[in-house]
Amino acid sequence: MAATPADVLEYPDSYVFLLDMPGLKQGQINILVEDDNVLVVSGERKREKADKEQRIKYVRMERRHGKYLKKFALGDNADTEKITAVYKDGVLTVTMGKRPPPEPKKAKTIQVQIG
Amino acid sequence: MAATPADVLEYPDSYVFLLDMPGLKQGQINILVEDDNVLVVSGERKREKADKEQRIKYVRMERRHGKYLKKFALGDNADTEKITAVYKDGVLTVTMGKRPPPEPKKAKTIQVQIG
Repeated sequence: MAATPADVLEYPDSYVFLLDMPGLKQGQINILVEDDNVLVVSGERKREKADKEQRIKYVRMERRHGKYLKKFALGDNADTEKITAVYKDGVLTVTMGKRPPPEPKKAKTIQVQIG
Repeated sequence: MAATPADVLEYPDSYVFLLDMPGLKQGQINILVEDDNVLVVSGERKREKADKEQRIKYVRMERRHGKYLKKFALGDNADTEKITAVYKDGVLTVTMGKRPPPEPKKAKTIQVQIG
């Protein structure tokens, strides 16, 4: 499993999820929302294979490959209908809108009947 | 210090260094050769600052920021005059040519003088 460190930023109107996922292509990243309260980001990075016939060999192998998987619990005010995602320079940025807070209930005046 | 995992591949005519450096810009990466035998790659990734006035705050902070630094000892046959570097999808690829092996010395025939 490849490491997928993430930052989450909260803005007044949105949440922004930043994930380090270097070396992927656009079609290799999947984003979905589970149960309307979990954001799931997954992908897979495949290692370039060493090739005896072409005489390519690994001298050093530190970069982690394989599947990426990251889940984020969403706040009640996350608007899962408003999601955008951009992949640039190996960083995936997922932006999710916030629902406006519920309107405060108006104070209700009760007339006291004079008996 | 940000993590900089690297793979090194050896091809018949070249060495290829692959470094995970997500979230950098082209001008933020420096590549140099020290003493003709060490490849040095450095850079710096700055964290987006939380901003009280704009009401931005970090909810999660896992991505490592700061300076990147990685050194590679080069083989005797590395041709430090032939280096190219490409940064794409958060992965820096440095390709270094190899010097051709020295020509084998020809066997020298010594005439035996008949005394």
